[in-house]
Amino acid sequence: MFGELFRVVTFGESHGPAMGCVIDGCPAGLLLAKADIERELRRRRPGQGGASTARNETDEPEILSGVFKDKTLGTPIAIVVRNADHHSADYENLRDLYRPGHADRTWEDKYGIRDHRGGGRSSGRETLCRVAAGAVAKVLLTGYGIAIRAWVSSIAGLDMPEPEAPDFDFDEIERNPFRVPGREGAERALAKIAALKAEGDSAGGIVSCAVTGVPPGLGEPVFDKLDARLAAAILSLGACKGVEFGAGFAAARSRGSENNDIPVLAEGGAGRLSLSFKTNNAGGILGGISSGQRLEFKAAFKPTPSISKPQQTADRGGAVREMIIQGRHDVCVVPRAVPVVEAMTALVLADFVLLQRAARLV
Amino acid sequence: MFGELFRVVTFGESHGPAMGCVIDGCPAGLLLAKADIERELRRRRPGQGGASTARNETDEPEILSGVFKDKTLGTPIAIVVRNADHHSADYENLRDLYRPGHADRTWEDKYGIRDHRGGGRSSGRETLCRVAAGAVAKVLLTGYGIAIRAWVSSIAGLDMPEPEAPDFDFDEIERNPFRVPGREGAERALAKIAALKAEGDSAGGIVSCAVTGVPPGLGEPVFDKLDARLAAAILSLGACKGVEFGAGFAAARSRGSENNDIPVLAEGGAGRLSLSFKTNNAGGILGGISSGQRLEFKAAFKPTPSISKPQQTADRGGAVREMIIQGRHDVCVVPRAVPVVEAMTALVLADFVLLQRAARLV
Amino acid sequence: MFGELFRVVTFGESHGPAMGCVIDGCPAGLLLAKADIERELRRRRPGQGGASTARNETDEPEILSGVFKDKTLGTPIAIVVRNADHHSADYENLRDLYRPGHADRTWEDKYGIRDHRGGGRSSGRETLCRVAAGAVAKVLLTGYGIAIRAWVSSIAGLDMPEPEAPDFDFDEIERNPFRVPGREGAERALAKIAALKAEGDSAGGIVSCAVTGVPPGLGEPVFDKLDARLAAAILSLGACKGVEFGAGFAAARSRGSENNDIPVLAEGGAGRLSLSFKTNNAGGILGGISSGQRLEFKAAFKPTPSISKPQQTADRGGAVREMIIQGRHDVCVVPRAVPVVEAMTALVLADFVLLQRAARLV
Amino acid sequence: MFGELFRVVTFGESHGPAMGCVIDGCPAGLLLAKADIERELRRRRPGQGGASTARNETDEPEILSGVFKDKTLGTPIAIVVRNADHHSADYENLRDLYRPGHADRTWEDKYGIRDHRGGGRSSGRETLCRVAAGAVAKVLLTGYGIAIRAWVSSIAGLDMPEPEAPDFDFDEIERNPFRVPGREGAERALAKIAALKAEGDSAGGIVSCAVTGVPPGLGEPVFDKLDARLAAAILSLGACKGVEFGAGFAAARSRGSENNDIPVLAEGGAGRLSLSFKTNNAGGILGGISSGQRLEFKAAFKPTPSISKPQQTADRGGAVREMIIQGRHDVCVVPRAVPVVEAMTALVLADFVLLQRAARLV
Repeated sequence: MFGELFRVVTFGESHGPAMGCVIDGCPAGLLLAKADIERELRRRRPGQGGASTARNETDEPEILSGVFKDKTLGTPIAIVVRNADHHSADYENLRDLYRPGHADRTWEDKYGIRDHRGGGRSSGRETLCRVAAGAVAKVLLTGYGIAIRAWVSSIAGLDMPEPEAPDFDFDEIERNPFRVPGREGAERALAKIAALKAEGDSAGGIVSCAVTGVPPGLGEPVFDKLDARLAAAILSLGACKGVEFGAGFAAARSRGSENNDIPVLAEGGAGRLSLSFKTNNAGGILGGISSGQRLEFKAAFKPTPSISKPQQTADRGGAVREMIIQGRHDVCVVPRAVPVVEAMTALVLADFVLLQRAARLV
Repeated sequence: MFGELFRVVTFGESHGPAMGCVIDGCPAGLLLAKADIERELRRRRPGQGGASTARNETDEPEILSGVFKDKTLGTPIAIVVRNADHHSADYENLRDLYRPGHADRTWEDKYGIRDHRGGGRSSGRETLCRVAAGAVAKVLLTGYGIAIRAWVSSIAGLDMPEPEAPDFDFDEIERNPFRVPGREGAERALAKIAALKAEGDSAGGIVSCAVTGVPPGLGEPVFDKLDARLAAAILSLGACKGVEFGAGFAAARSRGSENNDIPVLAEGGAGRLSLSFKTNNAGGILGGISSGQRLEFKAAFKPTPSISKPQQTADRGGAVREMIIQGRHDVCVVPRAVPVVEAMTALVLADFVLLQRAARLV
Repeated sequence: MFGELFRVVTFGESHGPAMGCVIDGCPAGLLLAKADIERELRRRRPGQGGASTARNETDEPEILSGVFKDKTLGTPIAIVVRNADHHSADYENLRDLYRPGHADRTWEDKYGIRDHRGGGRSSGRETLCRVAAGAVAKVLLTGYGIAIRAWVSSIAGLDMPEPEAPDFDFDEIERNPFRVPGREGAERALAKIAALKAEGDSAGGIVSCAVTGVPPGLGEPVFDKLDARLAAAILSLGACKGVEFGAGFAAARSRGSENNDIPVLAEGGAGRLSLSFKTNNAGGILGGISSGQRLEFKAAFKPTPSISKPQQTADRGGAVREMIIQGRHDVCVVPRAVPVVEAMTALVLADFVLLQRAARLV
Repeated sequence: MFGELFRVVTFGESHGPAMGCVIDGCPAGLLLAKADIERELRRRRPGQGGASTARNETDEPEILSGVFKDKTLGTPIAIVVRNADHHSADYENLRDLYRPGHADRTWEDKYGIRDHRGGGRSSGRETLCRVAAGAVAKVLLTGYGIAIRAWVSSIAGLDMPEPEAPDFDFDEIERNPFRVPGREGAERALAKIAALKAEGDSAGGIVSCAVTGVPPGLGEPVFDKLDARLAAAILSLGACKGVEFGAGFAAARSRGSENNDIPVLAEGGAGRLSLSFKTNNAGGILGGISSGQRLEFKAAFKPTPSISKPQQTADRGGAVREMIIQGRHDVCVVPRAVPVVEAMTALVLADFVLLQRAARLV
């Protein structure tokens, strides 16, 4: 379960009958169409380029509750997506083998039982439910003028231009299969990914995220800081191994006189003062609370563990064996992680927008 | 509030009457002495070296409830520490000024009111409560054979030896004021920090953390992954700007064939198989669940924003002004962050140890 | 959302596409068949006697996740039941009218919008999801030797024999459509309900519940007392207006010397002492914690507000009007509340059984 | 822990160093003076009449945090009350004996350890913390025009006049030591309690509560219904054995045509329609949501289990023994339960007032 007021539960195993989510706490009266969910699911769908698996699912969402005549009722919104394209037989040899870099063994350690078909619930397919729920959160946030934009800023070791760079192109992101911000980078990525595919290897990358329109004051000041909750949200994605806000790890090597963001101009607006700063090393968060600057963070994703090269592994009995992973797998999952990062960010922000209503007397 | 079963609430403003915490959900029957808490509070106390503020608090904890004849009762454990050494007058000029890099302004945006004396609740002094609560969690974990060890792996841009390096010395960590693992590094740090102090500037750094004895199976598989919860715990520290697990951001630039941890030997033990691996790029976590390997992560801390150099800032009316921050401040907060990182790690692990009891039928 | 460790979310409007629940936190390795759920749903199904509505739904549950080869995986268990038999047109005249005794108006006050068809989410059909989730909890509890038995102890003002009475017959409960404990009472109820039906009126009643096999120690001692949580569970049923434990309201009129349960015999068992008592005025709970005695409580249900007599009501514009409620309605909902009360009791106990594992060191 | 947004934790054993509470989630900017808390604590204090124990504690609260210059900061409010008047020696003989009607044995079953002095945490003294927290909630509610009024409607089997009766006198409630609404009843109660005291026996009673100014729309529609949450709050008081709303158990014996509350007049006000009803059998709650009518409920309290008559009981070894309870005990706890019932009601309503802000878009 995720969230305090805008709460989400997801369910479903990769090769079970269906995946889905229930959103509890979405305010009543929100205009919500099925197309809002389909659009985001389409962005996550596999088969969008050389980087991705060929699994062919339509991923058609069905809204079971909580919406009446395209308006939210305030009641739980259940969304279900059927699992259509099972190749469970591909996974038969995994019943007693633990794939390197996968959660097969830890899952079994935890529960004493696992659904070995396609990773079961630990499959990346689980993120589909997050994207569906995040689509609802995005609709809510749009009404508050909050816009979330993520992209691939590094793929297979190739760094892409930063938002401040002249060749950074926001519109290019959804045009190329790698979701990199600029055509030149997309071409470099294509070549690199193709080479890795030929070798039977895989790649990781970094997703950057920028959020505009975040009002100052979001985030709880001690344990539930805005960055703490975002970090948990992003690191709850299976392949994510790190997250940093603003200057992030580079801040650890800078001086206070360099890292402090200095106000240059104070602007009014709606009766309240809003500051502008020379820099945004803070990534839009001070003391765990949004400052009104652009929210900025980066997330590191490890390379897909499923590679077609032979690998050494262990079986249930403890014997070390060689295995070759079959089935369809992404060479690089990172471009498909972009809508998922956006979805998780949306869920966190929707929750804080609602929580903030209770923080002070009106 | 923090945690699901091992729950913690903290309270207190830096210059109010007292700070404290309530731990709800600590199991009954645990041997707990006041000295267990004092020892950890002493490690966090200021005035331990050139890096630290000279604020002189005894930080004497009082256990108000939950313990009877040095045994926990299963009831809430309240611990209070009085605030003794107020220099509130140092902060009078901050009533209407927003310090760069501090949460003064965001706090006011959130609540419409703030206690300007010493940062109020956004003060680093709030971490005292976490250390007190973490001390209780540590006692619980010790009974399970879980040991948490953190240190400063980078300070003011100077990198220290890694755990695998020949000059890495665990015992040195608590011997030098910078909590770096090796005498040579401590001397380099001393020189660098002294120079920054002379300039009126400040430094950040990186805290590394390693946990041994973590049983496989801790962590919830989707939203409440072990790394997700740890990330939230660590990023809930005000100065923290990033966290990474195992290979972390470097994993994003590696290949699957390099990054997958390959099992080399399967060892039995207590009737269950435990795997050994050639590497630990995963940092001891797979799919959000502990693997039984050493848990490893790093956290980036920004430089102390309070520097004695004159800085440009803004006041409540919107005017840009120059300010000089008075009061006593750490040149580098990172060595004192070490026990706090350990405390937050202990709180997360204590919670998961209790949660794991409910994950499967016995 | 309901529960702390054994958590349940339900969703669905009466005339929407489907109803359902997600159970998060059910331990792995539990044997769970679809028939376990069907059996309980069948007990709740309408059309079981003169007391009930004629709505004819098959209420076929589909398990979408969390179960693999009839064993729970430890992952969320989603169960969906399609809504088949819509007579939405029956409710067209309710779009702007507020039915007396129904939540039409309060719902609209809360959300500014409502699904007027059959009460939407405030329909009694919502309890179907609770029964499905409770069926899973019952399977868990059976493994611990905990058995829950509810019955109708008063219907339409007719009191039935108490468990201690010679004519109390447990086996009779599921044999007659009113779920009363004894054939003679069933005949009296039949006559009374038939008379009310002829008059176009409705009746309320009292459900009693007894739980055997509850181990001592369940319940949290302050806010989350066993009786507090059970009371919330039972009063979360729309028609319930009161709940009492053991001697209940009668205890308020007794003396301490009468009401105290006096131990008569101390029996060992599994190395622990278990007390017997002369009486059970406490209803098996002392200080919010189960004592090991039989858990006993009663719940009062108001008469069905939907009656076929003409009634005065108000419309959205504020005008007072006369209305006749159409559609199919229970003369008395209480017999169908029996499996629902059992389900809610099972959910509370399953949660406490899991929570108790974390209360003390082993 | 209690509450979702307006959250409360309490701590403290009866004979430990202190009792207290932490309120997390109180909005910033609320005017709160120490006197607001003292006033309510004074109402709960023992020694107020023939019905009460003679324990003489000043119960002086100290606010440790969350308030700055008599305004709430939005941060956790910690309140501590020292335990001053220990007569722990009175309880020495209870170390191995289980008092009838007390939680001694169940507590030990749960935790394997207990503080036997004065009941430890299961002591009625724990309610002091609830009253302190409730005092803060009351201040918040007063700003919303919500007023909570409780009284003793039945004591030692003597029924007092109902709010509609001509001899019901609200002002009398705080004037007499039994908190009954009318002088004549107070005199009857005095005689009855004195007689019980002479016999060494004790009495129970019923507390009624009425809340005016509750806006329509409070309460969550399924599990967290307003009545469900209130029931849990009230039944979390150790001596409470039942609760009923509006017509309560009597509703179970009435017909739909009698029990439905019929609207008689629709009044406008602030742009929204508000209904008046002929009756209030619903107790101001329909479908778990406040209707805008007066909120009404009753709670049954069992007689004080500590009586001075000799009683049969059991010891830790299982032997049945006779015991005489020493120490100071209330003949009837019910008058002192009045401010506690009000406090719990205030906590629930404060939470729902804040939650309601998130229920619909503005």
